[in-house]
Amino acid sequence: MIFYLFISACMRFRLGIEYEGTDYSGWQFQTGQHTVQGEIERALYVALKEKIKVIAAGRTDSGVHARGQIAHFDSVREIDCGKLERSLNGILPRDIRISDVTQTDITFHARYSARQREYCYYITRRPSALMRRFSWFISAPLDVKQMQTGADELLGKKNFKSFSRMDTEVKNFECTVEEASWSAREQLLLFTIKADRFLYGMVRAIVGTLVEIGKGTRGVADLHKILLAEDRQMAGQAAPARGLILEKVYY
Amino acid sequence: MIFYLFISACMRFRLGIEYEGTDYSGWQFQTGQHTVQGEIERALYVALKEKIKVIAAGRTDSGVHARGQIAHFDSVREIDCGKLERSLNGILPRDIRISDVTQTDITFHARYSARQREYCYYITRRPSALMRRFSWFISAPLDVKQMQTGADELLGKKNFKSFSRMDTEVKNFECTVEEASWSAREQLLLFTIKADRFLYGMVRAIVGTLVEIGKGTRGVADLHKILLAEDRQMAGQAAPARGLILEKVYY
Repeated sequence: MIFYLFISACMRFRLGIEYEGTDYSGWQFQTGQHTVQGEIERALYVALKEKIKVIAAGRTDSGVHARGQIAHFDSVREIDCGKLERSLNGILPRDIRISDVTQTDITFHARYSARQREYCYYITRRPSALMRRFSWFISAPLDVKQMQTGADELLGKKNFKSFSRMDTEVKNFECTVEEASWSAREQLLLFTIKADRFLYGMVRAIVGTLVEIGKGTRGVADLHKILLAEDRQMAGQAAPARGLILEKVYY
Repeated sequence: MIFYLFISACMRFRLGIEYEGTDYSGWQFQTGQHTVQGEIERALYVALKEKIKVIAAGRTDSGVHARGQIAHFDSVREIDCGKLERSLNGILPRDIRISDVTQTDITFHARYSARQREYCYYITRRPSALMRRFSWFISAPLDVKQMQTGADELLGKKNFKSFSRMDTEVKNFECTVEEASWSAREQLLLFTIKADRFLYGMVRAIVGTLVEIGKGTRGVADLHKILLAEDRQMAGQAAPARGLILEKVYY
């Protein structure tokens, strides 16, 4: 009976979050580190006087940004969502913004309910002052057509162990990539990748490998071999974190 | 004869410059102030061991950014443009980048040869961590259609004295506006304005006034009256500098 009352009294809330990851050791809370999760939990504590744990859709790595991060938390209190949004934005540092707070179904889970995630990676073709925190500057010529042929190879359900960081406890390396596309606009090159799930360091390893293909230091046929090898050593160097943005989470 | 030799030996160079204006007191050199011109002249001195004066197409105000600023300078030295570009980017702070250096005709003048300038102004409709240095966040509802009707009123050759800061020695307030358009993309509102010339503080006064129209605190019919009044007091409050970017200069 007490259990029943607890369940019925507990409400779940969904947060839309945007952050610049430059000054953070990633999303996930780590003692003594400056993390996005740590900042948000601290702000929730100030706003609600409650110790609250926040669960995010994507645990972005150190230096990685998010435009459309989604997280959820539970509270036994009645919460005015609009008011909480304003309070949190008043408490949080300006490189973390809450774009919306909504009450959601108790069965909603920011991480497990997510069907797909979309990441963007920005490369600038000339040194950029305005994009310096959000892009990788590459002056060398890049064959974008070859990079797209390589990206096409990633589509579908594949084992991405070769593109996963090795310091992980994950055992299932299968991801279904629905989109992997390069687009160019003036001096900017944008890579968009959408998949049901991503492994630790996966997008940066993919971008790093595709850039090596674009530079011609590696053939596009390599990509098939890399995937089959299931060995991180086979793939290219990870692209810098600053070019990566968690763009959107689909439910 | 000496004069003739000097002319023929003097070469003119054109710089493409991008900068984040956040930490600068604008483009123009001022003793004791941190300015973009000051930084570039200092970097040229380090690179070329020559005291060089740089002239820009648009003397952007404190806090205003530029993606496509153009400047020129003269030198009696033979200059390897590619090498100078790399040196300058090595010397300059990272919020100022040289996008290209080219030798140009001695008759080219960054300011006087410019036919048109294009500025962009960004407004965000939700608090944004990634755009916080480059946009004005407005949560109030905005009637963008009315704002466009207001913008249409600015087209053509008009006297913009009402939209000019008063601490100026300019005597001619006529500008020919070729484009003034609002476009919306998700949570972003972008204003693009293109004219043969701009007065001091003009774009920010225009955006501030159009936002008041969008909020409904001022009618769109006001705009015609403001223009006729030739009085800065009649126009709206200047929009914050951080949303403004000098996008492109046309020659």
